[in-house]
Amino acid sequence: MSSESLDSLIEALRRLPGVGVKSASRMANHLLQHDRRGAQALAQALNAAVDRVGHCQRCHTFSDAPVCATCLDPQRDATRLCVVETPADQSALERSGAYRGLYFVLLGALSPLDGVGPHDIGLAALFERATDGVVQEVILATSFTAEGEATAFVIADTLKARGLAVTRLARGVPAGSELEYVDLSTLAHALVDRR
Amino acid sequence: MSSESLDSLIEALRRLPGVGVKSASRMANHLLQHDRRGAQALAQALNAAVDRVGHCQRCHTFSDAPVCATCLDPQRDATRLCVVETPADQSALERSGAYRGLYFVLLGALSPLDGVGPHDIGLAALFERATDGVVQEVILATSFTAEGEATAFVIADTLKARGLAVTRLARGVPAGSELEYVDLSTLAHALVDRR
Repeated sequence: MSSESLDSLIEALRRLPGVGVKSASRMANHLLQHDRRGAQALAQALNAAVDRVGHCQRCHTFSDAPVCATCLDPQRDATRLCVVETPADQSALERSGAYRGLYFVLLGALSPLDGVGPHDIGLAALFERATDGVVQEVILATSFTAEGEATAFVIADTLKARGLAVTRLARGVPAGSELEYVDLSTLAHALVDRR
Repeated sequence: MSSESLDSLIEALRRLPGVGVKSASRMANHLLQHDRRGAQALAQALNAAVDRVGHCQRCHTFSDAPVCATCLDPQRDATRLCVVETPADQSALERSGAYRGLYFVLLGALSPLDGVGPHDIGLAALFERATDGVVQEVILATSFTAEGEATAFVIADTLKARGLAVTRLARGVPAGSELEYVDLSTLAHALVDRR
């Protein structure tokens, strides 16, 4: 092979998360040999997404419009605000079907070591949003990692001081798990939070 | 989330081989949140590759030019022609560093059940290429699958009848293997072809 364009395509595909040089090469070969239309469609979708996808002014999630459809939906319970780290986390909660309130998406978590501070995840905007007088409960659904826990702690601290009800997602044994294979810290939490 | 552009991007990414809806969504979120430049670069690389990458007139591999650099390289041994199924197979052989001859890329393998016949993999062009009077040995490096073996058989049959030396890649135990874990058919072949 001696195609610079192919080499550049492989290089560009490697920037996708989870794609190494072997997968990138397989993808490039597949597109050029079997699916050139798919390659063009992907190029178009990438450009359209970069041009059009911004962040919702109210909840900071990805949105083509200035305010996203979830924030505009009158059917949703505006007294509850769920705080998540990423739009992907928000999607996961939506798919669970267990929540009908509104969201605030931090687009990250506090991580002083990586230089991510309160300003980078829009904590001021969250505090303003949460104290609009309509929100009564803030549900912290950040990840159960060191960064996610620290972020949840800081938010809870501030919002409780302003008189809001602040809750955290329950920790416990995942559905479908056999106890034997659940890690000990999860088991300990599940015991403490038993009901 | 309520972004049609994001949904379209996830849909387009799913056309990549080995990418399901979860990976596609992770890729789209990553690009939009952390690497919009990478998304633009990928779009550009896709369009450039679709526009520029064609097939070499002599060996049918991917090439930006009408004849690829390998076919034009005077340092290569023009008396040997190695037949492979795909440009990716050709790359693998090149990376092995064990071959300095020329190539012919079938872009597939005979597969009557899938409607792939001799015309689809350019067998006529291969026979013309192999009987140019310079080529003395044709090395069959198609895959060791049913389709690859059938293709190798058909090519060997025709070219031997035209007086060319036709060889096949050796079958045997892969480097670094423990015998215990090598499949029996490979072991049997390795015994028969012992040297």
